[in-house]
Amino acid sequence: MYENRVDNLRGIFPDLGIDTFWIIQPENRRYLSGFKAQDGQLTESSGSLLITLHEALLITDSRYTTQAEQEVKGFEVVTQKGGLVEELSSTLKRLGTKRLGFEGGYLIWELFEEVKEKLSRQSPPIDLVPLKGVVEEIREIKEPDEIEILRRSAELMSDVLGRVIAELEPGQSEREVAWKIETLIREQGAEEASFPPIVASGPNSALPHAIPTERALGEGEPIILDVGAKLDGYCSDMTRTVFLGEPSDNFKEIYMTVREAQVSAFKSVKPGMKTTEADSIARDHIEKAGYGAYFGHSLGHGIGLAPHEIPAVSPLRPKSLQEGMVFTIEPGIYLPGKGGVRLEEMVLLGREGAELLTTNKDFSSF
Amino acid sequence: MYENRVDNLRGIFPDLGIDTFWIIQPENRRYLSGFKAQDGQLTESSGSLLITLHEALLITDSRYTTQAEQEVKGFEVVTQKGGLVEELSSTLKRLGTKRLGFEGGYLIWELFEEVKEKLSRQSPPIDLVPLKGVVEEIREIKEPDEIEILRRSAELMSDVLGRVIAELEPGQSEREVAWKIETLIREQGAEEASFPPIVASGPNSALPHAIPTERALGEGEPIILDVGAKLDGYCSDMTRTVFLGEPSDNFKEIYMTVREAQVSAFKSVKPGMKTTEADSIARDHIEKAGYGAYFGHSLGHGIGLAPHEIPAVSPLRPKSLQEGMVFTIEPGIYLPGKGGVRLEEMVLLGREGAELLTTNKDFSSF
Repeated sequence: MYENRVDNLRGIFPDLGIDTFWIIQPENRRYLSGFKAQDGQLTESSGSLLITLHEALLITDSRYTTQAEQEVKGFEVVTQKGGLVEELSSTLKRLGTKRLGFEGGYLIWELFEEVKEKLSRQSPPIDLVPLKGVVEEIREIKEPDEIEILRRSAELMSDVLGRVIAELEPGQSEREVAWKIETLIREQGAEEASFPPIVASGPNSALPHAIPTERALGEGEPIILDVGAKLDGYCSDMTRTVFLGEPSDNFKEIYMTVREAQVSAFKSVKPGMKTTEADSIARDHIEKAGYGAYFGHSLGHGIGLAPHEIPAVSPLRPKSLQEGMVFTIEPGIYLPGKGGVRLEEMVLLGREGAELLTTNKDFSSF
Repeated sequence: MYENRVDNLRGIFPDLGIDTFWIIQPENRRYLSGFKAQDGQLTESSGSLLITLHEALLITDSRYTTQAEQEVKGFEVVTQKGGLVEELSSTLKRLGTKRLGFEGGYLIWELFEEVKEKLSRQSPPIDLVPLKGVVEEIREIKEPDEIEILRRSAELMSDVLGRVIAELEPGQSEREVAWKIETLIREQGAEEASFPPIVASGPNSALPHAIPTERALGEGEPIILDVGAKLDGYCSDMTRTVFLGEPSDNFKEIYMTVREAQVSAFKSVKPGMKTTEADSIARDHIEKAGYGAYFGHSLGHGIGLAPHEIPAVSPLRPKSLQEGMVFTIEPGIYLPGKGGVRLEEMVLLGREGAELLTTNKDFSSF
């Protein structure tokens, strides 16, 4: 599997104008090599790949050597002595690299400058070629095996969230509920939550990225639960808005508006449709209902090894949807100080249209 | 507090050769503004600061506007329409910026290029000035309030780890123990683990950054527990190596060697000493015992809002230790395929030397 992926990547080297690709982005690294290590911080890499037409290397430091050797087949594991820049430089010399592609959307400016300086002093000098989202675009279309894992990840998350919602009670704190979700995610066998769960009640639900607080859940107010699991490396992501007791007429209307916007987008998306068009189907519906000013974010995003991937399903940068893409559909309406409603499903785009990966009995009743 | 920090930063603008500082690094952002939002992914910012001599702005998007307004005082909250680059450009025009400092050690190359292109077309054009670790260096010396929180974070972690170790039993899996640690960290009131707990037993303990597995803890083998909590934003970090039952003579010797190396570094560090010298005190001891080849990482690292900060206490890049620095002392010896021992304490450097922040009864008995 990894060998195929690396070979496919090699196939486009001529188009990219490179003879070696330096891969540092952690999900790209895992996708191509199977190396599961995470980066401690943005500026702390656990390793990077060097792929030429005939060779494949994983450069790491001694903290990760054994793990790399266990997890990665088909790559020569190189343990760097001294710094990364030194090791990169001497290894590229050995490989005979002339044009090194790098991930411009991930490499830190300072490291780029150090590498550029070092490589320009080699003879002959090595050119650095910025590349934009190359592996990300390959990852955008999911392979059957990946779809199977994403399906399991979404199912696990749907089950957990269903259980938590069934047991929601007024008086529980947002943090308590968020923690219960994280606990169940682990107990069900996932590695971790794919992002910190959002549990936002009452006025907090007007914050699309709320951090759970000690606030106690009240009756009749919106409670947004936006959660995801990471299973075998693959992320799920889903959102429900629930009310304990009867919501106000205003929130009933808002809820129905969001749901209708979501359903119309879900029913309309198909291969070939632009992401901007998908976004506008939901957005137009919300605008017509008079809430256009209160839907500030995009309709959705791709998902896979990373919780947020391309394609962005947003009003900006149109891109064609394709069969095999997995993305979210998550419109929302947020009234500052009052509360909000967001509903999010994860879908797989098939030849005929979208298929739900998250499970939702309510949804199918539309 | 935040106002003081911002004013101190403004005081060095002339030395930096800038009139505006663009802060994107999340911990720097929090340190200067109090904005607690985390970045969803490394390439997904929840906001950035623009600080001039007389103004302070937080640019964010609509997902974070309300949170920013609640958490941040003394900054004008600007919600970007369209993209960050557009908003940055028009805001800098309004501010009259001529020389914009940016964090070269954090800014992504692609975003840098977009911003540079955009700002070069303004009239007059705005210069981009790369800055290296400016706010990080301010953060390196902890304020009394920060030390208090770090102390509480280290105590919380020490208590939790003590409880978990007291209840360790052969047959428990690494993952089970890691999860128990995470659970207790939350139950004791911390926000989260400051990094995924490492529980590595037997041969796995030879992997300094091991991911917990389903492996069952055995008797007489080394079990490394490397854990940290994040409390009120501040991280702790500590490591114990324990044996259930009698270790082999070889591991007893290794354990004592690591402990002696740690104690000699702990007793020697003082303001003015170079980080490289501190590192070599421990490293020399391990080398003399014949294990030099098996201590592949640095002796320690600074800690604060981030789990890893400057100073790096390593064989490279000497730097003077100063009063008010908080860092770890964590030598280790790892025999591939067999196992390893690492011992880590978090210390505060006072005028006379190091003070332990983590608590460890064994340690004081040396």
